Amino acid sequence: MKNPAHREVQIDALRDAGNVHRADAIAVEEPLEIRLIKDQAAENGGTGRPISITMRTPGNDADLAVGFLYGEGLLRESRDVVDVRPCGPTGNVIRVTVRADLPLDLDRLHRNFYTTSSCGVCGKASIAAVTASAGIRAITSDLVVRESVLRVMPDILRASQAGFAQTGGMHAVGLFTAEGELADSREDVGRHNAMDKLVGAALMNGTLPWSQRVLLLSGRASFELIQKAMMAGAPVVAAIGAPSTLALELAESAGITLVAFLRSGGCNLYCHPARVRPARGES
Amino acid sequence: MKNPAHREVQIDALRDAGNVHRADAIAVEEPLEIRLIKDQAAENGGTGRPISITMRTPGNDADLAVGFLYGEGLLRESRDVVDVRPCGPTGNVIRVTVRADLPLDLDRLHRNFYTTSSCGVCGKASIAAVTASAGIRAITSDLVVRESVLRVMPDILRASQAGFAQTGGMHAVGLFTAEGELADSREDVGRHNAMDKLVGAALMNGTLPWSQRVLLLSGRASFELIQKAMMAGAPVVAAIGAPSTLALELAESAGITLVAFLRSGGCNLYCHPARVRPARGES
Repeated sequence: MKNPAHREVQIDALRDAGNVHRADAIAVEEPLEIRLIKDQAAENGGTGRPISITMRTPGNDADLAVGFLYGEGLLRESRDVVDVRPCGPTGNVIRVTVRADLPLDLDRLHRNFYTTSSCGVCGKASIAAVTASAGIRAITSDLVVRESVLRVMPDILRASQAGFAQTGGMHAVGLFTAEGELADSREDVGRHNAMDKLVGAALMNGTLPWSQRVLLLSGRASFELIQKAMMAGAPVVAAIGAPSTLALELAESAGITLVAFLRSGGCNLYCHPARVRPARGES
Repeated sequence: MKNPAHREVQIDALRDAGNVHRADAIAVEEPLEIRLIKDQAAENGGTGRPISITMRTPGNDADLAVGFLYGEGLLRESRDVVDVRPCGPTGNVIRVTVRADLPLDLDRLHRNFYTTSSCGVCGKASIAAVTASAGIRAITSDLVVRESVLRVMPDILRASQAGFAQTGGMHAVGLFTAEGELADSREDVGRHNAMDKLVGAALMNGTLPWSQRVLLLSGRASFELIQKAMMAGAPVVAAIGAPSTLALELAESAGITLVAFLRSGGCNLYCHPARVRPARGES
């Protein structure tokens, strides 16, 4: 791979047991410019319009780009995407070609957000747009997950995090079945990128919406992550960290069960608790 | 305060010891639109130009706005700022009035970044701009800090984090003297906002640059945070979490000593290590 996900550097490790000059792996953070172009324009040699720049860990860039555009409501199904490929010499620009007849209001896009590395929805040029353009649609999945299954998910996700194991500096998002099987996961220095990578892969694999899946966030639950989860149709979002007020408000409106502070010893339920069957009283 | 920093909600806490329905405090996350206007236009009743929207925890919004604009190079000194005040009914819009003769290339601004909640510099519309417009200037401070002093800083910062104690969901940035005294600190759901709040307050107090200060980040060290530290002239940046490659590259270029994985038992030095006097061999 042109741009690796982690890199070795020389550090001075200062410890009580002794100071050592040694190699250490750190997470790669590099900008990715996402460009969008319509099929016909691409054939005519156009390079597309820059939509966003995000600071991401290289890898799964095509998924990231597609997942980002899906989260912003610009793509709706896999057939909207004609081609995704890097352009330019750096590996840090990716161009998504969409079908020529896809309705795209790019002026609205330009007005409504600036951009977003770790904050898709905050990048709206007006506060009204933050909730309005999210296009809230309530999730009605009948999924039920046992608390005992939730409790083991953080360890399963952690075990899958090769990047974190190397660097100690990457977030992850895991996609689980209701039985606690890890269906897929992604890592990135930006937690929002990890989510976009997961969503983009699912869109192209035809496995959206996630109506029978549980999403697990390695960190906190912010508004933006809930928005991306909502767009992907996830009925249960669990976070190892804390939720914010806006994340909770959106989850409540969107019909998402919000679980946070998920640990092996328990968890907190913030809204739509009926999808979680508590361990006490579990049969 | 109109918009508090945390809010009580009702949760179901599921634990081995028993399930309880109870109140819990969560961190407030709300959008803040930062608007910029020149003095004369403000007198003529203008509302200014929207520059950025960030998802932040309410509180110290004026500092956040000023710090953000300083970090982007739009303000250089406190006298550039004529007035900062909320506008509109929500408490989520703030207008910064700058002196009428301040040179501002807002078209360039509009071209070069979209925005940023937790990623100021990633919001540049072209990748070239990411490093070019950062305007790298090497920091030459002769500050030296003892490792033994660094090691106790995380506990001091944590003890100051009222918001984290309440919610478990807020980042912090602390400003320390070389003797380990906490000079100032800020909390926010977005670590970049915490930094902007600290920088904005210092600009208005006339205590920039921070040539004799150590910055401590409660989380990881990203490119953007190093850029903000660089703009504020901080010679030593320490993170409790991991660094990224781009953060390290910028710290190296900017003459900033980068410390990460700072714990009571030690730390890692990534570049410009001469400003840290190791505990082993300390006199």
